Amino acid sequence: MTAGSESFSERLAAAVRRTATPVLVGLDPRWEQLPGRLREAHPDSPPGRAAAYRQFCCEVVDAVCPLVPAVKPQAAFFEQLGPAGMEALAGVVDYASRQGLLVILDAKRGDIGSTAAAYADAYLGRGGHSVWGADALTVNPYLGDDSLEPFVEVALARDAGLFVLVRTSNPGAGLFQDLVADGRTVYGHVAQLVERLAAASAGPAGYGAVGAVVGATYPDELAQLRAVMPHSWLLVPGFGAQGGTAADVAAGFDPQGLGAIVNSSRGIIFAYRQDPYRQTLGEAGWQDAVAAATGDMIQQLRTETPAGAL
Amino acid sequence: MTAGSESFSERLAAAVRRTATPVLVGLDPRWEQLPGRLREAHPDSPPGRAAAYRQFCCEVVDAVCPLVPAVKPQAAFFEQLGPAGMEALAGVVDYASRQGLLVILDAKRGDIGSTAAAYADAYLGRGGHSVWGADALTVNPYLGDDSLEPFVEVALARDAGLFVLVRTSNPGAGLFQDLVADGRTVYGHVAQLVERLAAASAGPAGYGAVGAVVGATYPDELAQLRAVMPHSWLLVPGFGAQGGTAADVAAGFDPQGLGAIVNSSRGIIFAYRQDPYRQTLGEAGWQDAVAAATGDMIQQLRTETPAGAL
Repeated sequence: MTAGSESFSERLAAAVRRTATPVLVGLDPRWEQLPGRLREAHPDSPPGRAAAYRQFCCEVVDAVCPLVPAVKPQAAFFEQLGPAGMEALAGVVDYASRQGLLVILDAKRGDIGSTAAAYADAYLGRGGHSVWGADALTVNPYLGDDSLEPFVEVALARDAGLFVLVRTSNPGAGLFQDLVADGRTVYGHVAQLVERLAAASAGPAGYGAVGAVVGATYPDELAQLRAVMPHSWLLVPGFGAQGGTAADVAAGFDPQGLGAIVNSSRGIIFAYRQDPYRQTLGEAGWQDAVAAATGDMIQQLRTETPAGAL
Repeated sequence: MTAGSESFSERLAAAVRRTATPVLVGLDPRWEQLPGRLREAHPDSPPGRAAAYRQFCCEVVDAVCPLVPAVKPQAAFFEQLGPAGMEALAGVVDYASRQGLLVILDAKRGDIGSTAAAYADAYLGRGGHSVWGADALTVNPYLGDDSLEPFVEVALARDAGLFVLVRTSNPGAGLFQDLVADGRTVYGHVAQLVERLAAASAGPAGYGAVGAVVGATYPDELAQLRAVMPHSWLLVPGFGAQGGTAADVAAGFDPQGLGAIVNSSRGIIFAYRQDPYRQTLGEAGWQDAVAAATGDMIQQLRTETPAGAL
């Protein structure tokens, strides 16, 4: 897949159709959970850990690239290692892109004016359009509509995408997001803005450049938000390790099986630490466990959600 | 100043008293606005620009370190240059710390659970406590109280601080922040949480580890938020270039002149581009213009706000 003659939303739709699954693999490396072989091969220092993260994530990419449309590196774990970690992140984004995966960088950035434009310029756009080269970025809406506009502008110019935090999957998410003002929750107000931005850039598949992050842990809200944002791709975290099931995420899809991508991070990349993969494949087979867990998640979504129509 | 036997809020109070000013200098480097001498000394590539940013910011630090308590590097402009920019950011944080300044990193991070903990671990704490070495970090509250807890935990353990976005200074800030729920604005709800977290860690000077970002462009709200958050340091952006005046920020202080730090970025670091400094000092005297603009801002705050009591 090469850069940008097609919009992000169309490329995502094509990738979901091609792989016949909406599974998004989260790349959240954690030193303590890496296979022992990888920890032993690198010194336990920030640059050593960064090299291990890079190798680990690239090997995850090798295991999943024939199976799924996209990966989602979590910036925090790379930032934790300082500049060496950021170098590793750049390497992972580049490698995943070259293996044909779309890369959604989970960095939850947000700022105003020229600072927002700088973040957008930094992260959005593959193929030399940006220095980090991501296809899409997660962003935080708290600062308001004018804080999102620079991101949207750059995304559209570079055929990239955004996922705005709308309703998150953590226990405390409701403290501010669920407050009701003018007859609507705060997250409902954010969803209205997201839909307006998405509708303005909708392509033939029906979706625009601006998507929404909506947790899997609140299935009723997912159904409601699918209806409120008919032109937005939904990025649904919370599957697996956070308790969300295939049935919980079913309402995120349209009847064609499009419109949602479902993230699993730990449940896939550290599958070797969990049964049944621990027993059948073990630590030596960690990469096979990644592929097996991905295949199992694909199968669950195919059986229990409209993704079966893909 | 060495690492962490004293809390961030106490170190900030001491630094404000020592310098007798609450001026916070924002380090927002922009390639197009750098003095020509600096641009000519470095190639126009991401690593070249990164080296220029580092040199520029360190020279700003040289000009302001005898005058002010703290600087605030803006992460976005460094991230825009990729890994080389992040390396430059690390160099700037380290240099400013060694020159005796407190460093508040403006990165507006926010996430949940172990991801929030990773961001906190990455940025919070000088003297080898964290790989980036900042004394404090700006954070976004949209994800709720449990998203802030890992940041607070790490901040307290490392004598570092946080500034939570409460009411920002941009024109669109009100879209979500001003929504009224249960008789209180959304930003008012956030302020309540901030005050609770701040009060729990308040030291002898009366302030805790958790502060708030409150824009200078809404003076009435600043007064109200000062009252709602008596234990929170307020980080007040929007002075100067964004239209805020000394009179606008006066309500942010307590009678001793503590409790608020007032940021100026462009108005100080690029003062050489603006009259009167352009005429009197010019581009060749850009560093003197930084010092002169800082001195003028200090004088304005001393004359027109309770900072005169310092």
